[in-house]
Amino acid sequence: MDLMNIMLEVTGSWSHFGGAVGAGLAAIGAGIGIGQIGKGATEAIARQPEAANDIRGGMILTAAFVEGVALFAVIAGLLAVLK
Amino acid sequence: MDLMNIMLEVTGSWSHFGGAVGAGLAAIGAGIGIGQIGKGATEAIARQPEAANDIRGGMILTAAFVEGVALFAVIAGLLAVLK
Amino acid sequence: MDLMNIMLEVTGSWSHFGGAVGAGLAAIGAGIGIGQIGKGATEAIARQPEAANDIRGGMILTAAFVEGVALFAVIAGLLAVLK
Amino acid sequence: MDLMNIMLEVTGSWSHFGGAVGAGLAAIGAGIGIGQIGKGATEAIARQPEAANDIRGGMILTAAFVEGVALFAVIAGLLAVLK
Amino acid sequence: MDLMNIMLEVTGSWSHFGGAVGAGLAAIGAGIGIGQIGKGATEAIARQPEAANDIRGGMILTAAFVEGVALFAVIAGLLAVLK
Repeated sequence: MDLMNIMLEVTGSWSHFGGAVGAGLAAIGAGIGIGQIGKGATEAIARQPEAANDIRGGMILTAAFVEGVALFAVIAGLLAVLK
Repeated sequence: MDLMNIMLEVTGSWSHFGGAVGAGLAAIGAGIGIGQIGKGATEAIARQPEAANDIRGGMILTAAFVEGVALFAVIAGLLAVLK
Repeated sequence: MDLMNIMLEVTGSWSHFGGAVGAGLAAIGAGIGIGQIGKGATEAIARQPEAANDIRGGMILTAAFVEGVALFAVIAGLLAVLK
Repeated sequence: MDLMNIMLEVTGSWSHFGGAVGAGLAAIGAGIGIGQIGKGATEAIARQPEAANDIRGGMILTAAFVEGVALFAVIAGLLAVLK
Repeated sequence: MDLMNIMLEVTGSWSHFGGAVGAGLAAIGAGIGIGQIGKGATEAIARQPEAANDIRGGMILTAAFVEGVALFAVIAGLLAVLK
């Protein structure tokens, strides 16, 4: 192995670094978002059990919005790691 | 592979780093925004179930605003990763 | 490809880095802003359903203000990535 | 293209970096500001629906102040990116 | 061990660093999210024990959303560590 391959490795290293950190940040985003939604939904069902279907609909819809963006961002991080 | 290609790779590496981190930040943004909206909407439906349609309308509209910006930003991050 | 083109590429790399991070920051901004607006609006409609039209008007107007700035900033980030 | 032009380009790269990040920070500012205004306004209309016009006036005026500064800052970022 | 092997080690080191930090960030995300969901669910069941099934359904669903993103991000971190 010569110097050039080594410099190439250094390169990939930064991609991995950023990819893993970016995926972690995306997981924090999912946590902040879906956490609030889940907390609100469980408390809302407790307060008004007969509205559980409406509440569940809003919960799944907004959680899916957050999930979509977060999974996209994790995939961006995975691509950076696998490159 | 010669030195020049390697320097070129180093270049791409920084793009990947920033792209993945940027996508992660966008996911945090979606989480902060849609999380609050979802929490507010579920609790609001619990308080006033007969206004569920009006509440759902406001919820979807504002969540879509956040989703639009966040998806754009994730795409910007993906472009930086894939370059 | 000679050394000069390569140095030019290194240049672009920093642009991508900043562009993706900047777009992510803009998405955080949209999340903070529209999240609060959406939460306030859903809870306000629950409290005073007969004022839903006035509340929706204020919600859309302020959300559009935030959206405008955030989309501009994401476009600035995209331009930096695509350059 | 000679070495000097390249060094000039490297320079421009840092401009793009800062421009995109600055535009993102401006969007965070708009989000924090207009988000609070919108949340306050929607809740205020719910509490006192007959004062909706006065509340809307204050809301638009303060949101426009925040918007003005944030758009200026985004334009400054865009100029740095486009240079 | 000669200089080249050492440089190689330095390289891998940055990947490991980022991978471990990213996995840690993902765990923070899962903690923020599932923590809020669990807290909300336990309090909600305490308030309205007869709605425990609906509450449990919402709790498991949202916790699974957070878990999915966080596990993906931890895997991205593991890949960066194992490379």
